[in-house]
Amino acid sequence: MYRNHTCGEIRMENSGQEVLLAGWVQTVRNLGGMTFIDLRDRYGITQLVVDDHTTDAVKNIASTLGREFVVQARGIVRERSSKNAKIPTGEVELHITELNILNEAVTPPFTIMDDTDGGDELRMKYRYLDLRRETVRKNLELRAKMAHVVRNYLDSKNFIETETPVMIKSTPEGARDFVVPSRMNPNQFYALPQSPQLFKQLLMVAGFDRYYQIVKCFRDEDLRADRQPEFTQIDCEMSYVHQEDVLNMFEGLTKHLFKELKGIDIVDFPRMTFAEAFERYGNDKPDLRFGMVIHELTDLVKGKEFKLFEEAEYIGGICATGCGEYTRKQLDALTEYIKKPQIGGTGLVYAKVNPDGSVKSSVDKFYSPDELMAWADRFGAQSGDLLLIMFGSREKTLPVISSLRLEMGRQCGFMDKENFKPLWVVDFPLLEWNEETQRFFAMHHPFTSPKPEDIGLLDTDPGKVRANAYDLVINGVEIGGGSVRIFDSALQAKMFKILGFTKEAAEDQFGFLMNAFKFGAPPHAGIAFGFDRLVSMFAGLDSIRDVIAFPKNNSGRDVMNDSPSPIAQAQLDELYLKLVKSE
Amino acid sequence: MYRNHTCGEIRMENSGQEVLLAGWVQTVRNLGGMTFIDLRDRYGITQLVVDDHTTDAVKNIASTLGREFVVQARGIVRERSSKNAKIPTGEVELHITELNILNEAVTPPFTIMDDTDGGDELRMKYRYLDLRRETVRKNLELRAKMAHVVRNYLDSKNFIETETPVMIKSTPEGARDFVVPSRMNPNQFYALPQSPQLFKQLLMVAGFDRYYQIVKCFRDEDLRADRQPEFTQIDCEMSYVHQEDVLNMFEGLTKHLFKELKGIDIVDFPRMTFAEAFERYGNDKPDLRFGMVIHELTDLVKGKEFKLFEEAEYIGGICATGCGEYTRKQLDALTEYIKKPQIGGTGLVYAKVNPDGSVKSSVDKFYSPDELMAWADRFGAQSGDLLLIMFGSREKTLPVISSLRLEMGRQCGFMDKENFKPLWVVDFPLLEWNEETQRFFAMHHPFTSPKPEDIGLLDTDPGKVRANAYDLVINGVEIGGGSVRIFDSALQAKMFKILGFTKEAAEDQFGFLMNAFKFGAPPHAGIAFGFDRLVSMFAGLDSIRDVIAFPKNNSGRDVMNDSPSPIAQAQLDELYLKLVKSE
Repeated sequence: MYRNHTCGEIRMENSGQEVLLAGWVQTVRNLGGMTFIDLRDRYGITQLVVDDHTTDAVKNIASTLGREFVVQARGIVRERSSKNAKIPTGEVELHITELNILNEAVTPPFTIMDDTDGGDELRMKYRYLDLRRETVRKNLELRAKMAHVVRNYLDSKNFIETETPVMIKSTPEGARDFVVPSRMNPNQFYALPQSPQLFKQLLMVAGFDRYYQIVKCFRDEDLRADRQPEFTQIDCEMSYVHQEDVLNMFEGLTKHLFKELKGIDIVDFPRMTFAEAFERYGNDKPDLRFGMVIHELTDLVKGKEFKLFEEAEYIGGICATGCGEYTRKQLDALTEYIKKPQIGGTGLVYAKVNPDGSVKSSVDKFYSPDELMAWADRFGAQSGDLLLIMFGSREKTLPVISSLRLEMGRQCGFMDKENFKPLWVVDFPLLEWNEETQRFFAMHHPFTSPKPEDIGLLDTDPGKVRANAYDLVINGVEIGGGSVRIFDSALQAKMFKILGFTKEAAEDQFGFLMNAFKFGAPPHAGIAFGFDRLVSMFAGLDSIRDVIAFPKNNSGRDVMNDSPSPIAQAQLDELYLKLVKSE
Repeated sequence: MYRNHTCGEIRMENSGQEVLLAGWVQTVRNLGGMTFIDLRDRYGITQLVVDDHTTDAVKNIASTLGREFVVQARGIVRERSSKNAKIPTGEVELHITELNILNEAVTPPFTIMDDTDGGDELRMKYRYLDLRRETVRKNLELRAKMAHVVRNYLDSKNFIETETPVMIKSTPEGARDFVVPSRMNPNQFYALPQSPQLFKQLLMVAGFDRYYQIVKCFRDEDLRADRQPEFTQIDCEMSYVHQEDVLNMFEGLTKHLFKELKGIDIVDFPRMTFAEAFERYGNDKPDLRFGMVIHELTDLVKGKEFKLFEEAEYIGGICATGCGEYTRKQLDALTEYIKKPQIGGTGLVYAKVNPDGSVKSSVDKFYSPDELMAWADRFGAQSGDLLLIMFGSREKTLPVISSLRLEMGRQCGFMDKENFKPLWVVDFPLLEWNEETQRFFAMHHPFTSPKPEDIGLLDTDPGKVRANAYDLVINGVEIGGGSVRIFDSALQAKMFKILGFTKEAAEDQFGFLMNAFKFGAPPHAGIAFGFDRLVSMFAGLDSIRDVIAFPKNNSGRDVMNDSPSPIAQAQLDELYLKLVKSE
C-alpha cells in the first residue's frame, strides 16, 4: 500500500507516531518560513507541515506542488498550535520527513470545493473531477448505503434477488424501446428492458414466491428535465398476496429507510383514492406537506351574470392562508403563471378575506357580500386569507389549480425538504382513452388486474373500471408504483383485446406469458421504486442527475466521453444494417 | 395473504392448529377411501389429507385436482400415522376443511421433479417450469446468497458500490461490442459494456478510492459452449495499492465465500508465474487438484535415431501414476484423443515402469534400458506408472500435454468437485503477437501496467515485457483476473502506440481517459470475477447456464420468448436504419 493511514483518521492519540499518507493536494499555503499543505482523500483532509526542521529535499519537492497533485507523505503526527474544530483531524498535523510526487496535475478547470466555480456543462464534461467534490461523492455514498439497506431488508423478508436479462424481446406496448441488432440472428433485434415486468411475473409462475432486483431500465423517450435514458429501479414481486399485503410490505421498507438513513420515524402512511386525489389536489401525486386542498364552488357560483363562470363546467380553487396582503402586482404574476402554455390556465379570480370578515373579490359586481362569504366558508377561510379560483372544464381546470397550489406552497415556504409526507394513492383507473388513436391504453400496464367488483364493466364501460394499482407518493413525487397482476390467461387475453391487440399480435408479443399462465400461475402482485428519485429525495436534491455517477444530458449524450458516436462500416456490415441519412 | 404459513414450516408443535396454505399440487395419491395431496411451494412440501371426515364439498374439489394446480387449503395440523423422515414437514399432515382452486394447470411438458424427464431444449423453452424444480431454484438461491456475502464483505472493506452506465461509447479494442442505435443522435451508436473498465478507472481518478459493482457485461462473440452474450462480473478497483494488496484483498474475499457458503477453510493460495504455469502445466490456469506436472525430456532424448524426437523442438510429458496397466486399446484411445483437431497433438510415445523397475516403451528400439530409466527418474516415476510423452514445437506441444493431463485427471478420478484448489497466476506477458494482423494485442487490456523493471524492454523487445497482471484460478478454471493499471498519461499513450493506434485514433477513442489522467490520477489496480462461473463452481455445476435465471442458447436466442425478433419498419425509420438482406 502507498499509505498506512487515510487522510481522515489521524487524531490526537496518534501524536508522535510516524504515518504514511497518500492523496490529492487540496491547497498549499506558503507563509514564508512555513508551508501548510492540505492533503485530501475520500476519508478526509490532513494538514501537512513543512517548517525549519524539514529537510531541504522535502522542502524542494513541496515548493513544486500544485493543486490536485497526487502525493505520498511520510511524517510525524504532532498536536497543532492553532486547531481547526471544523474537521475531525483538526487537532493534529503531519510534520513531513519524506514526500513523493506520485502524479502531477494540470490546473483543474474548476475548483474542487463544495462551493465550486464550475458551471453545469463544465462539470459534466469533467465529471471525474466533479465527483472529487465531497458534496457530490456523498450523494453517491448515500446511494450505495441505500442499496445496502434495501437489500438487507428484502433479504430478511425472504425475497430472492434474481437477475433478469438485459437483452430481451421488444414489445410495442409502453414507451419506445432501445434496440440492439443481433449479428447472429440477422435483421432481428433485442430490446433493452423498460422494466423486468414479464420476467418477474414468470418468476412468480416459477414459484420464486418473492423476487427483487435493483436493476437498470431503459426508455428511449424525448428527455424532459430530470429524465435519463437509463435509470434504476428497485423491482419487486410477491406471490399469494393481496394489494394490502404489498402496501404493508413496502410501507415497511420505506419506514425502515427513513429510520436507518435519516433517523426519522414516520407513522402509518395515509391512503387516498385516485378519484379523491384528483378532486382535492388536482393530480395523482398530492404533496401533503401542506393543506390548501381544492374546493369546488360550481354549485355556489352559477346563475349569475358572470359569463366566465356560467360557461364553465367546473369552478374551484384553493385558499392561500395568510396571503390576503398579496399586492396587485403579485396577483397579476399568479395570473401570468397559470396562463403559461405548459400550465394552460385561462384565468384567475381572487377574493381576499378582510380583517373584519368581509370578502373583497375581483368579481364584486357579480356577487353579493353574502355570496362571497359563502365562498369563504366553503374554504374555511379566515381573515387575511386569499382565495384563488379557476374555471373551465373539470379535467383541465383541476390540474391548473394543482399547479397554482404547488406554486403557492413554494411561495409560502411549505416545501421543507426535510419534512417527509408519504401517501399511498390507490384505485387508479385501469384504462386511459387516447383521443388521437381512438383506443384505450393501459394506465399502469397491460398486466394490471381490474378490481374484481369492476370486472363486469369491462364489457360495458371499460373507462370506468378501476385497477388494483397503487403509487407511493412522497412530497408530491411518485416514488413507486405497482399493481396486482392478472394471473388468469383468459382475463389477460381479454385485456389485450380491449387494448386493441389482434389475437395474432397478442400471441406474437405475449404468447409466452399467456402460455405460462396455463401451467398454474399463482396470484401475484408487485411494485417498483424509482431508485434514483428515492436517493435524490433523501439527499435533498431536485435532480436525479446528481445521484448518478455518470449521467447523460438531455440529448442522451455522455459529454465526458462524447458518446454515442459513429461506428465502423465493417461493424454495420456484420449487423446487416445500412444508415439512412437524416435530414 | 392467501396463506398464513408456508408449505415448509409446519411441525409437530403445530398439531391441532388451523392453518391456511397455498401452493402447487405436486402429486395426488388416491388410495380408495383416502386421498393424499402433496402441496408444494418454494419453502417445502406439506401433505394434505382427504378422508372420511372431510366434507363432500372439499372431496369434490379434491377429486378434480391435477398436477401443478394452484390451490389454497385450510385445515387442521395432525400427526401422521406413517411418518416421512426425508422432509422436515414429514411428521405432520393437514386434514383439510376448505379447498379452493386458485388456478388450474394443463399438464406440464415434463415432470417438475429434481430428476426430471425433460430434455435440455424443452426445459429451456419452458424455463419458468424448469425453475420450479428445487435443484434449479437452489442454484439461483445460492447465487443470491453469494451476491449478498460478496457485497457485505466489500462494504465492510470500505468499497463503494457504484453503478456505471450500460449505454457507453463503443471502442474497437477487445471483443465485438453489442451496439444500440441512438434515435436522438441519428447514425450514432452506444455500445453495451464488455466491462466497466474505463468508468472504474475514472472513479479512481475521481477519488472514490475503492469501488465495486456486481454488474452485467456484454460480448458479441460466437458463442462457444458455456458462454453467454450477457454475463455478470464482480467488478472492483482500488487506489493507492500495489499488486500484492489486491491479491490479499481478493484472496480474503474468496476464502470468506468458501467459509460462509460451503463451510470450507482454505489456506493461503499459492502463486505461480505465467512462465512456470506454462512450463509445468501447459496452460495459464493449472488445475492443482492433482500433480502429474509436466517434465521436459528434450535434453535426455536427443542424438538417437528416433526421427520424431530428433526433429522436435520440445519433448516432454507427464507421469500417470498407477496407469502402467493401461491396455493397448486404452493407449490407442489416448493417442486418438490428443490427435483430435481441437487438441492438435501429433503423436504419443509411452513408457511403462514394470514391477521390477525396468521400463518398457513404444520406442525400445531407439533407447537403451538405462536411457529409459533416466526418463522415469526425471518424472520420479514408480513401478506401475505410465509415462506419456509428446513432441513438437514448444508452444504447441505444451498445450497438448496439458489437455492429456486433464484427461488423465478425469480418468483417474482426481476431479473431485468438492476439492477446491485456488491459485494466483501472476506475471502474464503484457502483449501477444498476432501473426495474422502482424501487430501486438494487449493480453489483458490496453490499460495494464508493465512491470516497472521491464519498461525498458517496451522499446527494444515488447514481446518480452511482463505485466502486473494476475488471474485467480480454481480447479483449472479462471475465476477472476485483473491488473495494476497505467496511471501516467505518457505511458498510456506509448501503450496505444505499441498497440498500433494512430495518435488520432487513440485520442478519439480514449482521449477522455488520457485527459483525465492529467488531472492527478492515483496509482490504482483492480480485478473482476466471473460471477456466473463462481456460482456454478460453488454449485458443483459444469455449466453457467444453470445459475442464470433466463439464459440464452448458443445462437444467442431466448427460446422461451423467441427473441431476438424483427421490429417494425416505423421503428427502423425513427432510427435512420435500413436492413440489408442477409444471404
